[in-house]
Amino acid sequence: MKVELENVKPMEIEKRSFEIITEELKEQGIVLPEETEWITKRCIHTSADFDYARNLVYSEHAVEKALDALRKGATIVTDTQMARAGINKKSLARFGGEVKCFMSDEDVAERAKKNGTTRAVASMDKAADLEGPVIFAIGNAPTALVRIYELVQEGRLHPELIIGVPVGFVNVVPSKELILSLDVPSIVARGRKGGSNIAACICNALLYHLEGKR
Amino acid sequence: MKVELENVKPMEIEKRSFEIITEELKEQGIVLPEETEWITKRCIHTSADFDYARNLVYSEHAVEKALDALRKGATIVTDTQMARAGINKKSLARFGGEVKCFMSDEDVAERAKKNGTTRAVASMDKAADLEGPVIFAIGNAPTALVRIYELVQEGRLHPELIIGVPVGFVNVVPSKELILSLDVPSIVARGRKGGSNIAACICNALLYHLEGKR
Repeated sequence: MKVELENVKPMEIEKRSFEIITEELKEQGIVLPEETEWITKRCIHTSADFDYARNLVYSEHAVEKALDALRKGATIVTDTQMARAGINKKSLARFGGEVKCFMSDEDVAERAKKNGTTRAVASMDKAADLEGPVIFAIGNAPTALVRIYELVQEGRLHPELIIGVPVGFVNVVPSKELILSLDVPSIVARGRKGGSNIAACICNALLYHLEGKR
Repeated sequence: MKVELENVKPMEIEKRSFEIITEELKEQGIVLPEETEWITKRCIHTSADFDYARNLVYSEHAVEKALDALRKGATIVTDTQMARAGINKKSLARFGGEVKCFMSDEDVAERAKKNGTTRAVASMDKAADLEGPVIFAIGNAPTALVRIYELVQEGRLHPELIIGVPVGFVNVVPSKELILSLDVPSIVARGRKGGSNIAACICNALLYHLEGKR
């Protein structure tokens, strides 16, 4: 079979992809704010879905504060092993940070059972005990976002950034609105869309920016 | 802040989500073939993106053959650790299967360097040496799909199923067309969309179907 493959070197593919995304945004008449466009474009790159040009909401100074936190070695907490797998851990380690996902921990399963909650809720409770700066990267469980909201309201949690991008059809939309109502730095994909891939992608965009790579 | 959260038990959320997807497909006038709709709907569930109702292409008897292969303990090979993380390994193990991702292997890095290819290509070459039935779940690298195509053409690879769902803007579309041209069972997301999440999701849909869960 004859197909037309572009002769682009592996290292150039990402660059070319971002050029295409930039061109098509222009064609669609979409102008992204300079401070955040490199994150939004990476989400489009990860999903081939231009809806992210419209649904991503950045709270004021969220990116600045997130970059500061990562520079200080912030811990990233995810709600899936998949998001954890997708985050560039080598890059994060350069700044002294690490990724934690408590979803498969035995004590989390026990706590969830005891309290009659999801494991995502129990994971957030466990994360509230972490020392040092914490970034939440939530791509799956709306219950995780609701619990983060409650813990912040109770003064028991002070995250540097909440990445609120669960995907889905039940309770996803309102859980994101809860996060947007907080006075905490956040990056939220308003509406139904998101996912572990998007959560990881936003973390990586921040890390690559810090490394001056992209 | 007052938001409206639906009072749905965690176990019921997936069921309710599929009901919503079914309703909205109906509203959009989309009728999915019965043999594959449970896979397509799970992809929509994973992404909140109804484009998957239109872009997924199933080769004839692909699902039947894939289910047979999984029943026989097929190995699933992924091109990202993220896809590997997303596949339900407990469910797969019940049938004697496991997931392999060679992308971080040292011999793969060496082979890629020596041959001047991507690591994805070297991973597929390594996969060609596997014993027993193999399913490929490719959600990232078009070069992996191109290499699978070549290996099949050369008679060196006889996969039970190729899940061809890389995402992106360069060489993604034609790499999928190559797979569609083969006389090998395949599930392909035609066009730019896909991802490691979609690759894992299709594997899980097949596994849950086998378990009679959904």
